[in-house]
Amino acid sequence: MQLKVKNLNLSSGGPLIAVLNEEDVRKLDLLASDRIKIHKENENIIVAIDLAKSKLIKQGYIGLCEEVVKIFKVKENEIVRISPEPKPLSLQFIKNKLDGIPLSKREIDEIIKDIVENKLTEVEITYFVSACYTKGLNLYEAAYLTEAIVANGGTLKLNKYPILDKHSISGIPANRTTMIVVPIIAAAGFTIPKTSTRSITSAAGTADVVEVLAPVTFSKDEIKNIVKKTNGCMVWGGAIEIASADDKLIKIERVLGIDPEGILLASILAKKAAVNATHVIIEIPTGKGTKVEDKKKAKSLKRKFYQLGKNLGMNAKILITKGSEPIGNGIGPVLEAIDVLKILQNRKDAPEKLKEKAIYMASVLLKMVGIRKSYKKAKTILESGLAYQKFKEIIKAQGGNPNIQPEQLKIGQFKHEIKAKNSGIIHSIDNNLLVKIAKIAGAPKDKGAGIFLNVHTKHKVQNNDLLFTIYSENKKKLDYLLRVYNPEKAIEIKVE
Amino acid sequence: MQLKVKNLNLSSGGPLIAVLNEEDVRKLDLLASDRIKIHKENENIIVAIDLAKSKLIKQGYIGLCEEVVKIFKVKENEIVRISPEPKPLSLQFIKNKLDGIPLSKREIDEIIKDIVENKLTEVEITYFVSACYTKGLNLYEAAYLTEAIVANGGTLKLNKYPILDKHSISGIPANRTTMIVVPIIAAAGFTIPKTSTRSITSAAGTADVVEVLAPVTFSKDEIKNIVKKTNGCMVWGGAIEIASADDKLIKIERVLGIDPEGILLASILAKKAAVNATHVIIEIPTGKGTKVEDKKKAKSLKRKFYQLGKNLGMNAKILITKGSEPIGNGIGPVLEAIDVLKILQNRKDAPEKLKEKAIYMASVLLKMVGIRKSYKKAKTILESGLAYQKFKEIIKAQGGNPNIQPEQLKIGQFKHEIKAKNSGIIHSIDNNLLVKIAKIAGAPKDKGAGIFLNVHTKHKVQNNDLLFTIYSENKKKLDYLLRVYNPEKAIEIKVE
Repeated sequence: MQLKVKNLNLSSGGPLIAVLNEEDVRKLDLLASDRIKIHKENENIIVAIDLAKSKLIKQGYIGLCEEVVKIFKVKENEIVRISPEPKPLSLQFIKNKLDGIPLSKREIDEIIKDIVENKLTEVEITYFVSACYTKGLNLYEAAYLTEAIVANGGTLKLNKYPILDKHSISGIPANRTTMIVVPIIAAAGFTIPKTSTRSITSAAGTADVVEVLAPVTFSKDEIKNIVKKTNGCMVWGGAIEIASADDKLIKIERVLGIDPEGILLASILAKKAAVNATHVIIEIPTGKGTKVEDKKKAKSLKRKFYQLGKNLGMNAKILITKGSEPIGNGIGPVLEAIDVLKILQNRKDAPEKLKEKAIYMASVLLKMVGIRKSYKKAKTILESGLAYQKFKEIIKAQGGNPNIQPEQLKIGQFKHEIKAKNSGIIHSIDNNLLVKIAKIAGAPKDKGAGIFLNVHTKHKVQNNDLLFTIYSENKKKLDYLLRVYNPEKAIEIKVE
Repeated sequence: MQLKVKNLNLSSGGPLIAVLNEEDVRKLDLLASDRIKIHKENENIIVAIDLAKSKLIKQGYIGLCEEVVKIFKVKENEIVRISPEPKPLSLQFIKNKLDGIPLSKREIDEIIKDIVENKLTEVEITYFVSACYTKGLNLYEAAYLTEAIVANGGTLKLNKYPILDKHSISGIPANRTTMIVVPIIAAAGFTIPKTSTRSITSAAGTADVVEVLAPVTFSKDEIKNIVKKTNGCMVWGGAIEIASADDKLIKIERVLGIDPEGILLASILAKKAAVNATHVIIEIPTGKGTKVEDKKKAKSLKRKFYQLGKNLGMNAKILITKGSEPIGNGIGPVLEAIDVLKILQNRKDAPEKLKEKAIYMASVLLKMVGIRKSYKKAKTILESGLAYQKFKEIIKAQGGNPNIQPEQLKIGQFKHEIKAKNSGIIHSIDNNLLVKIAKIAGAPKDKGAGIFLNVHTKHKVQNNDLLFTIYSENKKKLDYLLRVYNPEKAIEIKVE
């Protein structure tokens, strides 16, 4: 069947989608989500058809979403030929998994390849996520999934040994240890090519915070050069498409707020495997409001991470930490960058807990590669200024200003202070509400937006003491925030 | 937040969807599939937001899909106010089911209500279908689901007792028993308000075949009048939205070709419960190419249908039949209508097996309501012409021409004959391929398109005997069909 191309000027959000007229669909006996192959000259592309929008397209035409136009490079009104195409094999594998049949390495690879190449629709990916969630992945499947994500994404080959890395399962704000651990490890002479994410649901991802001080978007070769020069880096993983299958799975998971364990394990270790990491620490924060609230579940996850790492030839150490409140004082890119700089500069007003936690995490990594008295070593590197020196090297290598001071960073000019309404002891701090507030204030896009916390749990406060300050770069956002949300609810004071 | 309305002129295919600009989405801290409430004057509507198409919409605007514009009746450039809205409760229930927690009556009702009212996105409905498939529905849940589908769809209240009904789980072509069973039952003095579907994946649904002879689309009151006059009807259920949740679930199921048993049970019995049926027969055809290929599965389904019917206060009898080949000779609306008329007119060239099967099914129904020697009774009603008389009454009541003869029905003018390439015995007939061929020839939309079968399995044929004829109203369709498919493969001859 020959058809004329019509650009729908419409993004599908990923999947390769074409819209046909109802009459043409009938001629080919096609059903929703069936596939067709579009031919032009010597090229062809396989797309899923969308019936819902059939009325948009006249008979004899084929509407293409932006994603197809971009890849297939067809012009408006160009004549193409289409033919029916069987559904992708990966759909049968997804059905098998939904039936409880474990998947082979090849099958998982096929599914992930099709997801990365936008060959599956959102409904089809939802079936895969559901199958992983309800039937679970055994450790072999989790390993295959990890390998598939690595094989179908970007990797960074450094030819070094050992390569160290860290990861924290997100869930708590102001947990910006990476920017302290990386310079300690690199200053100790070890390679740590850290790739980070931008914020997905948080007020700031590590990449957003580093970006306050230096660019974070680099090509693979540029990253290799930075690591070669400094032993480390603090860059955005998205630019080199590390674990790109991830984003598509996460988008679907978020609809129902589920996080299938097998996918969680695989997507984290894939990011480490993609940089050939040999020694890895993974932090699992637990407690109210974190991703893994339950300690028992954290312990089970810990065993699986360890075993899966082993299957993948990776030495993984898993730290279960307390995550029921923010660790540092700042929430939001600039405010968190200030926390980090203060710690590296050994300032008296640096957030003590964040500093201690970073030293501890660095020490665990150092111990894994055979450094004795590793805690003392990590602490000395930090407090002697060696870590700060290394940090400045990395910032410079990434094209930032290494000499910038906390006072030079611009916090949002509009602010609102929340004060204690009575005296007592800080009983709890609501991570989720603080993150929500920081985001509506503008974080992470408005770098200077966010929250500065003056208190942590167990602190004593007097009536009218300052609890925290909300900063925003935009008065309207701050006004909207205060009209719709009640920031006072974020901190609970127990009257003594 | 105040926004200007922009009509996207785009159907979502059901779900109520709005598209916001990325910047506005950020201000409200929304994620894909989050909900907003749109306010105008005293009205409001809750919609899901779509982020994929954010680029379509400028800041300060809100794009609405056709479905929203139709219900909410807003004009282009009208100013509306939006506010964040929690996700529907039904999503939490779907998550619970995915976690294996059985659903309560209220929870299932809420899910079905939201599906019918287009409040859930396709990804969300997919999670529900997956949950029903992987975790199964117990018989309580299946009963709740049936009741929910009835409560959230159209019903037909007749104030009669008993009310008889029949249903066949689709899967075999030329199985047009309904148009013979209904007049036999009605002629015997019992009420049988039969609602049927149009073709979904088959070459013709009963509604498509009846439509060759009379209109099938009526309001509830019109249907009541037809039944009052004649004891029966043969109408399209879609017009009175019987079991409307069904269509949306089926669309999602078809993507992966799954058919969760609990949904299958509920959607069939819901159609019967919606007309207050008290005595129901359900046919489960088994064998290669049918929906329930496996006899063991058919038996398990039979038990569940029976028990579920009982829970719903319905007397259900389930017949497991052989369905590995077409029953009648015609496939496609006109060709099947011809088969039916020939049987009712007691013609010699009527398809014998279809006649026998219809008599048997009618006899089972009659026996259920206490008629003795019911097979003989059904046979007599048919062969005496009483059934044909009743059929003509029903066709007349539905506004058709009761005196139309098979010879007056227009079969497609373009035809292609398939002949035996050697002598032997018909070993097998490929239902699925025949249906595919009939559909590509134009059925069910082109009423005269389809297939006339000259043979059934175990028939002896000589070389060059006519096996079947493909009819089409359109030469291009027939040419395309013969270029892409090989109809000869549909019939396998075993050489003796």
